[in-house]
Amino acid sequence: MIAPGFTGGKLDRADRLRQDPAAVAAAMGDWRARLLLLGPGYEPQVTDDGRLAWTTLADADPQADLVLLGLDQGRPRFAQITNAAGGAPFRSPRLLGALGELVHGEAATYAQARAVLDWHARHRFCAACGSPTAVIRAGWARKCPNCAVEHFPRTDPVVIMIAEYAGRALLGRQGSWPPGRFSALAGFVEPGESIEEAVAREIHEEAGLRVRDVRYVASQPWPFPSQLMIACVAAAEDDALTLDETEIAEAIWVPRDQVRAVLAGGEGPFLPPPAYAIAHTLLSEWAVA
Amino acid sequence: MIAPGFTGGKLDRADRLRQDPAAVAAAMGDWRARLLLLGPGYEPQVTDDGRLAWTTLADADPQADLVLLGLDQGRPRFAQITNAAGGAPFRSPRLLGALGELVHGEAATYAQARAVLDWHARHRFCAACGSPTAVIRAGWARKCPNCAVEHFPRTDPVVIMIAEYAGRALLGRQGSWPPGRFSALAGFVEPGESIEEAVAREIHEEAGLRVRDVRYVASQPWPFPSQLMIACVAAAEDDALTLDETEIAEAIWVPRDQVRAVLAGGEGPFLPPPAYAIAHTLLSEWAVA
Repeated sequence: MIAPGFTGGKLDRADRLRQDPAAVAAAMGDWRARLLLLGPGYEPQVTDDGRLAWTTLADADPQADLVLLGLDQGRPRFAQITNAAGGAPFRSPRLLGALGELVHGEAATYAQARAVLDWHARHRFCAACGSPTAVIRAGWARKCPNCAVEHFPRTDPVVIMIAEYAGRALLGRQGSWPPGRFSALAGFVEPGESIEEAVAREIHEEAGLRVRDVRYVASQPWPFPSQLMIACVAAAEDDALTLDETEIAEAIWVPRDQVRAVLAGGEGPFLPPPAYAIAHTLLSEWAVA
Repeated sequence: MIAPGFTGGKLDRADRLRQDPAAVAAAMGDWRARLLLLGPGYEPQVTDDGRLAWTTLADADPQADLVLLGLDQGRPRFAQITNAAGGAPFRSPRLLGALGELVHGEAATYAQARAVLDWHARHRFCAACGSPTAVIRAGWARKCPNCAVEHFPRTDPVVIMIAEYAGRALLGRQGSWPPGRFSALAGFVEPGESIEEAVAREIHEEAGLRVRDVRYVASQPWPFPSQLMIACVAAAEDDALTLDETEIAEAIWVPRDQVRAVLAGGEGPFLPPPAYAIAHTLLSEWAVA
């Protein structure tokens, strides 16, 4: 059973409720309703038992709009929309620390909240006409009062993939990464291409390889800010690399036993990705195949 | 070998070239450069041999921005950005007719052009501050001259799936569809969920079923306006339906042999989806499993 990072959320998203303003008002008036506590830069506040911290709606800014994250066994759960764009970057030590403390499933709720709050902060105006927009549908859309266009949160599909050749996996390193850190190659799916085509294009652009037999492995959300990570394996036609050095500073072919050793905590030619990154899930699946 | 609709495009997207203004200018000056011919509503113009029709850049509006679609054996291929939002709807007879005439691969180029042109038309203002934005990166992004934010085309992941139970597939019908037309259920992937979680949520919301063992089958772009369709199969825990009648007017469980018969052109309880819709690919894969 694969359980990638940022999955396993327990909230019922209550899609039908969002569309019913009277029901949303009732949820906000429910004494059991809770508001997600977030620090500056959308940092999660973690309880001693690895859960997200919540407070009552009495602590919400009366001027702020709320997002209905969903229902926890019938109890409404909200987050407060702010105009503060730009969450703490994924690699900030405080955020990394907090993510490491959250039990499985709690990080999924965090990912949901962070992605939608950050989207609101960065999309307060109508892309069609430039007017300020208003929050609708319990925080799951915005609407332009001028041109009536509705805008929905973005989710940007990204392919992340291993090219394999003769039992070895291709890992790459961006120049800005810490020494020793390698991961799977990745890139945004573009308009007008399938997942499989995006995998082949990105591997060719970044490493100069042609691939075939793209195989889907797993997916997870990645709220920095709004990606849907789609992990795949593809068979390379040879192992001769031509790197795009604006994207990839260095790339290595790593045999299966070395990937297994690194993921088990042993020595190897690269530092393992964190457990909540899908690169970890992808390498784990590939290593046991 | 699966070949979903709107895949198999032959253009090299030339990612590195887009980022080099001098190279883009050279491509526009290349006598071999061509401009995609489109009718009103982004309708494709189809040649007698089932290909997209092109003209020279001399026919471009000198005031308009161009998108570099890519290179065809080194020859630059462009499309012209207009402010005309709202392409012809997918079910318009002229568009359906044109799509049916295009040979495999040509529809992929059309999908790429249509998705990015329509995105420009509907995203001319900065969502962060409301200012008019300018085209950059050879048509693959827009930038705000006021707040310097860059905006990239949207690609919205959508899950489309069959729930299966005891050798039967669940198909549903929206109230607005023609009589007899059934298809796989579908819905947008939301912020903070994986593909597998979106499949389970949508099937539960629309049909009241709990599922497990979500299996990825295939993907394709769907440029009406900007979806990435992700096709899956999931095992339902029972077959007792509770329909969300705002989404699904009617649903039926169809045995494998009946799905096979319908796809082969025979009689059955539903009309088959068009070949370029991924529902067709999904049903075909499921029917032979």
